[in-house]
Amino acid sequence: MNTSLDVEQPVRPARLPPPSDLLGVSTAQRRTASLEESIRRDPGRFRVLTGDRPTGLLHLGHYFGTLHNRVRLQNLGVEMFLVIADYQVLTDRDVADHLTEHVEGLILDYLAIGIDPGRSTIFAHSAIPALNQLLLPFLSLVSVAELSRNPTVKDEIAHSRQSSVSGLMFTYPAHQAADILFCKANLVPVGQDQLPHLELTRTIARRFNDRYGTGAAVFPEPDALLSTAPLLLGTDGTKMSKSRGNAIALAASADETAKLIRGAKTDADRHITYDPATRAEVSSLVLLAALCLNRDPRLVAEDIGAGGAAALKRTVTEAVNEYLAPIRKRRARYAQERAYIQQVLRDGIERANTVAETTLKEVRTAMNALY
Amino acid sequence: MNTSLDVEQPVRPARLPPPSDLLGVSTAQRRTASLEESIRRDPGRFRVLTGDRPTGLLHLGHYFGTLHNRVRLQNLGVEMFLVIADYQVLTDRDVADHLTEHVEGLILDYLAIGIDPGRSTIFAHSAIPALNQLLLPFLSLVSVAELSRNPTVKDEIAHSRQSSVSGLMFTYPAHQAADILFCKANLVPVGQDQLPHLELTRTIARRFNDRYGTGAAVFPEPDALLSTAPLLLGTDGTKMSKSRGNAIALAASADETAKLIRGAKTDADRHITYDPATRAEVSSLVLLAALCLNRDPRLVAEDIGAGGAAALKRTVTEAVNEYLAPIRKRRARYAQERAYIQQVLRDGIERANTVAETTLKEVRTAMNALY
Repeated sequence: MNTSLDVEQPVRPARLPPPSDLLGVSTAQRRTASLEESIRRDPGRFRVLTGDRPTGLLHLGHYFGTLHNRVRLQNLGVEMFLVIADYQVLTDRDVADHLTEHVEGLILDYLAIGIDPGRSTIFAHSAIPALNQLLLPFLSLVSVAELSRNPTVKDEIAHSRQSSVSGLMFTYPAHQAADILFCKANLVPVGQDQLPHLELTRTIARRFNDRYGTGAAVFPEPDALLSTAPLLLGTDGTKMSKSRGNAIALAASADETAKLIRGAKTDADRHITYDPATRAEVSSLVLLAALCLNRDPRLVAEDIGAGGAAALKRTVTEAVNEYLAPIRKRRARYAQERAYIQQVLRDGIERANTVAETTLKEVRTAMNALY
Repeated sequence: MNTSLDVEQPVRPARLPPPSDLLGVSTAQRRTASLEESIRRDPGRFRVLTGDRPTGLLHLGHYFGTLHNRVRLQNLGVEMFLVIADYQVLTDRDVADHLTEHVEGLILDYLAIGIDPGRSTIFAHSAIPALNQLLLPFLSLVSVAELSRNPTVKDEIAHSRQSSVSGLMFTYPAHQAADILFCKANLVPVGQDQLPHLELTRTIARRFNDRYGTGAAVFPEPDALLSTAPLLLGTDGTKMSKSRGNAIALAASADETAKLIRGAKTDADRHITYDPATRAEVSSLVLLAALCLNRDPRLVAEDIGAGGAAALKRTVTEAVNEYLAPIRKRRARYAQERAYIQQVLRDGIERANTVAETTLKEVRTAMNALY
């Protein structure tokens, strides 16, 4: 039932065959290069919508896959809206029963990595009625067939009994369109798997403008900013995920981190190399150290050379703990200031409500339904 | 694409075979009798939600089918919320392009027949974001299969290419639940065709209370108040409907009314009788006169006797025009006061928003999502 709103998934690892351009990946890559150039020239032209489901602590996979890039964009001067997708976790009872804790933990993680609530708007999806109302006109612009064709929805239907797919899950692509378009975001960081989602948002924006626009478009057709982040595996060699216990949380202690890395899967070859295509687990550890050290992973591997898995793990542990130390320190400090965290969320909610109400008023005006 | 939110459709005409109780019709009938007794004893216990799509002028079919009953309930002291279901007409371009006109016309009709905006709340669906937000938690409580099984949705899918059913139409039963439950209505006037709709609303209320309630229920499980109104046919002998040009609008002039009735379909038998099972068109005209005269239709037919269709039509025309005269007079007067009509709507919207925001706050509290 859960689907990720975390649209910045890393691209596929290099060992997979290059995807065809059926989904417009090459086009999106070229477009992304040109967008990065525009961002550098004029960051004020861009507004980003991105976010996360509040399911637990963020980890290094999130960090190097998406979070780091958000801070980069923010610091370049791009305005950012960060949605905490709390309605997307409703159906997971374990999560829903600790919602406040998860939401506040997410904000701690954001602030710790350098998201600045003075520049970026952090808000909870369920607290913005005018955003949620956009779902209704948007649902009128898409067909049941289009909703069913959405890859995430299809995947969900394939992996569960049809009867257990909820109406909320089924309409997810329209919710995502509302999340993106309520603030007229024109840039959405995505992994290539998420391109079809964004395409439906673009379709909804276009149809709304065609159907109700009188001259000026109400909504932008947002561009995908395709992630170029490399894939980090979990310590067991599979996808890094909190639920698999193979992820190093940003909030973990140095000792917890050391323990997780000590138990990481490697292989029998004592000579450490960086070769993601044939040596996934070892290369992922090398990559993690390289990302933390801001070095070329091939050079990191060379330095370890014949030191074997033990030396590799020592290098990774030190690099990670050193890299995360200031983040963890900030997180611990903010964790003492619960009232401040709550105020950050309330301020973000207030700002998102103002933006959503302005957009909804434009929508009502365009639809001739302003009474 | 249109589905009626006008849940008070008249029951089937007598000539159809009595329906089985598969849909719980007999149960609902017994329950309705007991509810009517409770309403007489303690009307203040009840809150009704009902409403209409703003597709054009209301006609005599609406009046004797549903509107008259609303005024009766209001005057007994039952609190009433009247939703103008403007989001349900979005997909009909002809209607949507004249939305304000249709909405104001509907309010004129309401006021003309005796709806008192001091006691009943008239509001537009699209103007109540907190009501619309309820759609999200409600959609999480119903499956795609349950939505597909809904008779109105099934009908829509059967009568159009599957690909053209919009997401808005598909999720209609959850919208209706939001319309009813946002104001915690505990009574919904329905025709028996609409019982399955209300059953899904009851299911959603129950599931929400079970899932999120801590002791006290957040939502009532609303009761159906089954309509006992007889079926009036249009002047061509088919279902009365504005789009078929066979309906006498409340707002029509006396001359337009006379002309429509003059052209009404009858039969070759000059002896007028009241026999809906075998003589549908003539009996519907007799019934119309009887309803306006507040007499037994058999006695009305007896009085006309061998006078034939011409005498019948004279009787009907006089009865209708006399009955509608004060309604039309009030309507014409209100039509001069557009600012007042707009104020009635704004006041109703303000009141509905207050009620919806209170309910949404309870919902958020129950869901542990009050930040």
